[in-house]
Amino acid sequence: MASIRAALCQTNPVTGDLAGNVRGIVAAMRSASGADLAVFPELSLTGYLCRDLFLERSFQRKAASALRRLAEKSRCHPRTHFIVGTIMPCRAPEGRFLSGGWGDDAVKRLQNVAAVLHQGRIVDTVAKTHLATYDIFDEDRYFLSGEPKALSLPFPHGVRRAGISVCEDIWWSDVPEAQVAQGAELLVNLSASPFHAGKDVLRQRLLCQRARQHRVPVLYANAAGAEDEVIFDGRSYAVSASGKVLAQARAFAEDVLLVDVPLGPSARGSLPRRAPRIADIRAALVLGIRDYCRKNGFSRAVLGLSGGADSAVTAALAAEALGAAQVEALFMPSEHTSALSERCARETARRLGIALHVVDIRRLCDAAQDALPARGIAAENLQARVRGTLLMTRSNATGALALACGNKSELATGYCTLYGDLAGGLAPLGDLYKSGVYALARHLNIPKVVIPREVLTRPPTAELRQGQTDRDTLPPYPRLDAVLRAFVEGRETPYPHRPENRQVIKMLRRSEFKRRQMPPALRVSVRSLAARRYPLRAL
Amino acid sequence: MASIRAALCQTNPVTGDLAGNVRGIVAAMRSASGADLAVFPELSLTGYLCRDLFLERSFQRKAASALRRLAEKSRCHPRTHFIVGTIMPCRAPEGRFLSGGWGDDAVKRLQNVAAVLHQGRIVDTVAKTHLATYDIFDEDRYFLSGEPKALSLPFPHGVRRAGISVCEDIWWSDVPEAQVAQGAELLVNLSASPFHAGKDVLRQRLLCQRARQHRVPVLYANAAGAEDEVIFDGRSYAVSASGKVLAQARAFAEDVLLVDVPLGPSARGSLPRRAPRIADIRAALVLGIRDYCRKNGFSRAVLGLSGGADSAVTAALAAEALGAAQVEALFMPSEHTSALSERCARETARRLGIALHVVDIRRLCDAAQDALPARGIAAENLQARVRGTLLMTRSNATGALALACGNKSELATGYCTLYGDLAGGLAPLGDLYKSGVYALARHLNIPKVVIPREVLTRPPTAELRQGQTDRDTLPPYPRLDAVLRAFVEGRETPYPHRPENRQVIKMLRRSEFKRRQMPPALRVSVRSLAARRYPLRAL
Repeated sequence: MASIRAALCQTNPVTGDLAGNVRGIVAAMRSASGADLAVFPELSLTGYLCRDLFLERSFQRKAASALRRLAEKSRCHPRTHFIVGTIMPCRAPEGRFLSGGWGDDAVKRLQNVAAVLHQGRIVDTVAKTHLATYDIFDEDRYFLSGEPKALSLPFPHGVRRAGISVCEDIWWSDVPEAQVAQGAELLVNLSASPFHAGKDVLRQRLLCQRARQHRVPVLYANAAGAEDEVIFDGRSYAVSASGKVLAQARAFAEDVLLVDVPLGPSARGSLPRRAPRIADIRAALVLGIRDYCRKNGFSRAVLGLSGGADSAVTAALAAEALGAAQVEALFMPSEHTSALSERCARETARRLGIALHVVDIRRLCDAAQDALPARGIAAENLQARVRGTLLMTRSNATGALALACGNKSELATGYCTLYGDLAGGLAPLGDLYKSGVYALARHLNIPKVVIPREVLTRPPTAELRQGQTDRDTLPPYPRLDAVLRAFVEGRETPYPHRPENRQVIKMLRRSEFKRRQMPPALRVSVRSLAARRYPLRAL
Repeated sequence: MASIRAALCQTNPVTGDLAGNVRGIVAAMRSASGADLAVFPELSLTGYLCRDLFLERSFQRKAASALRRLAEKSRCHPRTHFIVGTIMPCRAPEGRFLSGGWGDDAVKRLQNVAAVLHQGRIVDTVAKTHLATYDIFDEDRYFLSGEPKALSLPFPHGVRRAGISVCEDIWWSDVPEAQVAQGAELLVNLSASPFHAGKDVLRQRLLCQRARQHRVPVLYANAAGAEDEVIFDGRSYAVSASGKVLAQARAFAEDVLLVDVPLGPSARGSLPRRAPRIADIRAALVLGIRDYCRKNGFSRAVLGLSGGADSAVTAALAAEALGAAQVEALFMPSEHTSALSERCARETARRLGIALHVVDIRRLCDAAQDALPARGIAAENLQARVRGTLLMTRSNATGALALACGNKSELATGYCTLYGDLAGGLAPLGDLYKSGVYALARHLNIPKVVIPREVLTRPPTAELRQGQTDRDTLPPYPRLDAVLRAFVEGRETPYPHRPENRQVIKMLRRSEFKRRQMPPALRVSVRSLAARRYPLRAL
């Protein structure tokens, strides 16, 4: 039976870095040598999350010239059709618009395309049909929609029709249907599909379904790497016409996967082994921290170690991402800090092998109280803000990225202090509920205990007043997290007759102003708090 | 000649407050008594900026029931057709979507509609055709597009065809064209058109052009009030078929304007008197502060008064919005604070009649230095953060809204400290360049000087080190602001061969991480910094 040799080129683009991304793509082109078809991710030339950079005319021009450079490079591999994701200008829609002052922004002239490069030329382009505008996606802000089409590609062993589409298009039934109706013998999808726990199962099910449904093989290339807080997990797939996975590229890492894909039914294929959910989350967060640092020019991180679980897990992830020698912790005791907290913080730092500085904040809090007396919540927040100030001072002095250690449960309920524990350039755990933080801690402790057991068994406390525990303010975390998860992901209060549930949702609605100013939080769930866009007004 | 009696009902909805907005609309219905047609703003029932609240099923149900209540109320005014803006469910588009976990968010089933209420019934609805998805607008995130149509409305003196549309639709040529082709004798537009300096001229020109072009009168109702940082300036219009303004409702205030509109050509009409640009900006900012406080439950504000222009202008605006007795200032001198600054701060507070507390931060900075030594930028930022901490402590202790005093020039260049001078719940001047702040100060000083002249004549300085002035780091403000304005609004570096200009744009690109965490800034320009959505990565 006829087959084609495909290369799934799972690159890690740097947002907006055209020159760097060209280098990355050219290197992958070389690794794909000998393939008939080499597929790159959606917007692999520009990076997916360029946002308003897409609207800059000069960026559009530079992207066009970068694509021509890539086309030129395709001469060196005359056998291969390269399919690269980029932006491309198009005609504006019908109707004249009298702009309220926004010019080009209001009248789109750009598409999100798959460009086919072959023997030195840009042979054809296919524009994305279904633009994603929900959750963290804002594609209608930048792009016009295109029409589905199938292209004839002259492979060495004969011309084949390929239904090339971009990401969202394969999640909708109509695009592959239209392409198969146009004679497509093969579906090819360029994707920038962000990770969330469990997403790989959905993707695999979808691709196998599309293959089976239309009796054609599917090639799917996904990006691998983080852009700002969004993490792409790779795992590109080749699926046979029988709906079996022929090959899966690496998770959370760049890869070029060469695979022979039969164009007819095939018995080959198997389900790839799945990593446990929590292992995936760990890998995602480590990649997220590492890529954030690398792409933003940080080599070191600093964080406040409190003796609690959140900061211990953050420290462990940072040490894994950057190396223990690149991570520094501040332990900042106040009058309310227990000996247990100090022991926990010291033991955590020792086990992780990271530097720990003890900075007593009592004199500072006293001086602040002398300057402007504060009681109750104001005094509690004061301590957190003094710590935030010291953390940022250390970050400014050493050039290390300040990590905020807050988790999703705290951020959702507003059980946190603006400019206090919320201070930092990145919040690695900001999309993980407290129960997830514990699960991750247990996972990090296998095979070797790096987070002392005491950290995980003690009752959670902010230690901002004597004898305080989280339970004074919040329901037990398993219950809290269940309510939050249902509401954040499902947008409905679960069991709204329960006063506790109503109270939790009220806390969520009333703390929007804090989240508006929170640091970017690495996204690992289907709906991060940043993907919830709400008015500031407490509803 | 036949004419209709129209009421332009310029309400001030509170985001998401359906019960309150129903009350506001019912009151305006009463004031519109005797009109044939009463037009309300776009999304006047829900508020324009509900954002993801629109996606909550329970909110959609409540909005539907609120609309039925309004329809019921229309029985009391049997002569009048009421046209109210709200959301309404509709059929999802063709094609099946295999959701990646986002359910309803990805497959829209909602429209942004004008609902016609008459004699107790919801007579008809018209859905917005051109969804705005640019700048601060994200309508494709929530809504599906509708088709333009003209409706037959049975007025007491005969049936008339009306082309009802929602906001953006009248800015495009095709919707009014289609409506006139369907026999529309009158164009009606429901709008939530945010203020920016000069916007009223654009709007008026547009409406007069549409009227002249199609020889039909135009009724245009705009919202009046602020939702979060976005300010709607009212100024609803009735325009004759000859393209003359028949009447204009109030600026920056609720209003119900009754006007007789001839259905044929009419010599009547005149250009309304325009307020100077800077007077508009002042009125917008005062309304913005007042509505932010009122809608978020604050009656008081607190800010840091430095002796410079930004904080003086912020204080003056807050005093105008809330009353001087409701505004409190902290003067927080460090070792670098000059006697001139103290004199300026004291004199500003005295002239405005606001309370001033002097809080010396020297001991606090010393204590912080003892705890964690810092030099250079780290030491400069430390002072700003100590002030930010004290400001927030005062806000927590008194329940007053903390105002951040930064201007757009500083925020754009990153010449500001995260969690320092950026700390606060609202940044009134965050969308006004430094030159605009000076212009506003001069305007505030007429007829009575409230901001001492010395504040405006001294060279701007952050006073974070000895002898520092803004000129050490930034070009002179007139030049800086010109470059920023060109780039922010036009997305191109002006005269890119000038090193100074390139340096300014570099500063802008490198400070995105600060703006991601900045407080909401009242929007008064065509492109606020919040409307620029960029990756965090310094490009």
